[in-house]
Amino acid sequence: MADVWIAGVGMTRIGRRPERLQDLMAEAALGALAAAGLERPDAIVVATMNPEEFVGDGNFASNVASHMGFAEVPAVRVETATSSGAAALYAGFAEVAAGLARTVLVVGGERMTHLPTPRVSEIIGRSIDPYERSYGATMPALAGLVTRALMARGGLGAREMAQVAVKNHANGARNPLAHFQQAVSAEDVLASRMVADPLRLLHCCPISDGAAAVVLTTERARVRVAGIGQGADTLALRHREELTSFRATRAAAHAAFAMAGFGPERVDFAEIHDAFAPFELISLEDTGLLPPGKAGRATLDGETALDGRLPVNPSGGLKARGHPLAATGLAQIVECVWQLTGRAEGRQLDGRVALTHSIGGLATSNWVTLLEAV
Amino acid sequence: MADVWIAGVGMTRIGRRPERLQDLMAEAALGALAAAGLERPDAIVVATMNPEEFVGDGNFASNVASHMGFAEVPAVRVETATSSGAAALYAGFAEVAAGLARTVLVVGGERMTHLPTPRVSEIIGRSIDPYERSYGATMPALAGLVTRALMARGGLGAREMAQVAVKNHANGARNPLAHFQQAVSAEDVLASRMVADPLRLLHCCPISDGAAAVVLTTERARVRVAGIGQGADTLALRHREELTSFRATRAAAHAAFAMAGFGPERVDFAEIHDAFAPFELISLEDTGLLPPGKAGRATLDGETALDGRLPVNPSGGLKARGHPLAATGLAQIVECVWQLTGRAEGRQLDGRVALTHSIGGLATSNWVTLLEAV
Repeated sequence: MADVWIAGVGMTRIGRRPERLQDLMAEAALGALAAAGLERPDAIVVATMNPEEFVGDGNFASNVASHMGFAEVPAVRVETATSSGAAALYAGFAEVAAGLARTVLVVGGERMTHLPTPRVSEIIGRSIDPYERSYGATMPALAGLVTRALMARGGLGAREMAQVAVKNHANGARNPLAHFQQAVSAEDVLASRMVADPLRLLHCCPISDGAAAVVLTTERARVRVAGIGQGADTLALRHREELTSFRATRAAAHAAFAMAGFGPERVDFAEIHDAFAPFELISLEDTGLLPPGKAGRATLDGETALDGRLPVNPSGGLKARGHPLAATGLAQIVECVWQLTGRAEGRQLDGRVALTHSIGGLATSNWVTLLEAV
Repeated sequence: MADVWIAGVGMTRIGRRPERLQDLMAEAALGALAAAGLERPDAIVVATMNPEEFVGDGNFASNVASHMGFAEVPAVRVETATSSGAAALYAGFAEVAAGLARTVLVVGGERMTHLPTPRVSEIIGRSIDPYERSYGATMPALAGLVTRALMARGGLGAREMAQVAVKNHANGARNPLAHFQQAVSAEDVLASRMVADPLRLLHCCPISDGAAAVVLTTERARVRVAGIGQGADTLALRHREELTSFRATRAAAHAAFAMAGFGPERVDFAEIHDAFAPFELISLEDTGLLPPGKAGRATLDGETALDGRLPVNPSGGLKARGHPLAATGLAQIVECVWQLTGRAEGRQLDGRVALTHSIGGLATSNWVTLLEAV
């Protein structure tokens, strides 16, 4: 298997965007191509979770390729719900690793803010097991249930969860592309309105528009994809062996570290899927970055802050950078590449190895990617 | 790049099916796994064009994997409109060729017949360029326009087009899994109601439910994927350089033959995307299987019949076997593998090399795959 390198990355500002989805994706993609010094990729992989229902257009790989002036470049779309961006990176990785393409443009995006929130919730809810959905389960409701189980297990309380949001908002305030660039206090979090008990508004990521892109190549560059792995779990939450740890993350991390040939101790910083604040804590333990039961304390102690031992979500995470679904898995890669190559002004970290973690659905299809600067 | 082999194939009967989409896909997939003698694949690639709008469920890779009892097997969904099955085969091929998986289950399906035809047409129409769609263009309308241009070019008349349907219905009558298993006459075709002038009902494939599956492996088996290629063209028909030949097919065939290291003269039979009868004629020329301008005459002369020099669509094609969108690209592979391994009772062909051809959208994302029996 050939080594796979990242030649360039790009992304849009995340937030409420008036542009069409294909415009957002083109902006991110052209940025990544410019950074790579590449005029035209051999192939394109497009990630978008549900363009048919969000924006009314399908055949979106062709749509984006045509829109960018690359109508003749082969393009496919890849989807694994909210982790589609990471899945698309994997598809591009496989093409390059197999020698089927020398350069692949991977671009993901979503546009959602133009729709009423209940409609967005309905569309995202198609990712939930149909039987559980038939009882009215929404993503926040299921996340609330997981959070309750986590709190009942002990060692995690309101302060720990609030601190995740406080930290990520503080980071987002340093990221000019973040949806939210304002700090919040723990009091703000705890006073925000209840969404799905015990999750309050400021525990939850926003509904965002945006796009992100990565150019993969066989040619040696400054950052290598050292490992990439997917893990899976039952669609139905009620069929899980446990609620307070995601099997899909554990399997993804195992596969990614096995491919990389090193362990979590080598990771210098991480971008973690904090769609709901407690998911950052669960995921830090599931990836092996922190020991079981220790993520809450480590967060309170500042270990995962920008100046901590293991900075987590320097971009602001899904919470503050925002979560334009299929863009997110790639936006995490973009942030890590910028960090690894000294282009994260205002929030620059040291380090050579970064981990990204993306959750699809209610942790049915999760990905862990390891990037290494050389 | 490692050789990629087909360990087993399976498919459902195509037609009006009362089962849920995940049941159809499980039936096809379990058939393919049984044929492969495999209990559990390393990875799953799922093809379905638009399950969110057709059946109301998303996150469909997880849905299918969970439904089959493979909740822990990594699964992704791949989509390129009506050629999604072929695109999924390519994604699985890349995983195996790269050494990322030893066995990949590729399964595609669609369920559509439960919806009113205008709603099906609207959903499929999302594949059309939005500007052209805004003028009321539907897939049959655009295909009618292409057909008019083809007839104006000369050498193709009503008899040639009707004969494609007559031939494919005759083949379908020998296929117990086909949607239509009745022969039709040229008079029947020419007397059927007009759909989009000059295309009549019997020039057009039906709306079908069904699923098909293929198991890919690194282990030597009886059939090898000798070549696979994608070609692309502008989303908008009005931006094409020509209407009577599909650039996307020509590029796909070029890539597939280049990978295989042989040319069209080695192909013994083919499954061609005849969503509209004239598309079979266009595609026979675009793939290089017949010289430009010769497909109509060859069809009338019986060259592409089951007992002809180059049998085309022995399964009955999209016209008679049926066209459950994302299943189709895989159903073509299933038919060719059955033919190549002596399991096509009642319509068995000789031959060692087969070509499959799948069109995505209005020829925006086309695929050619070459299979070789060893």
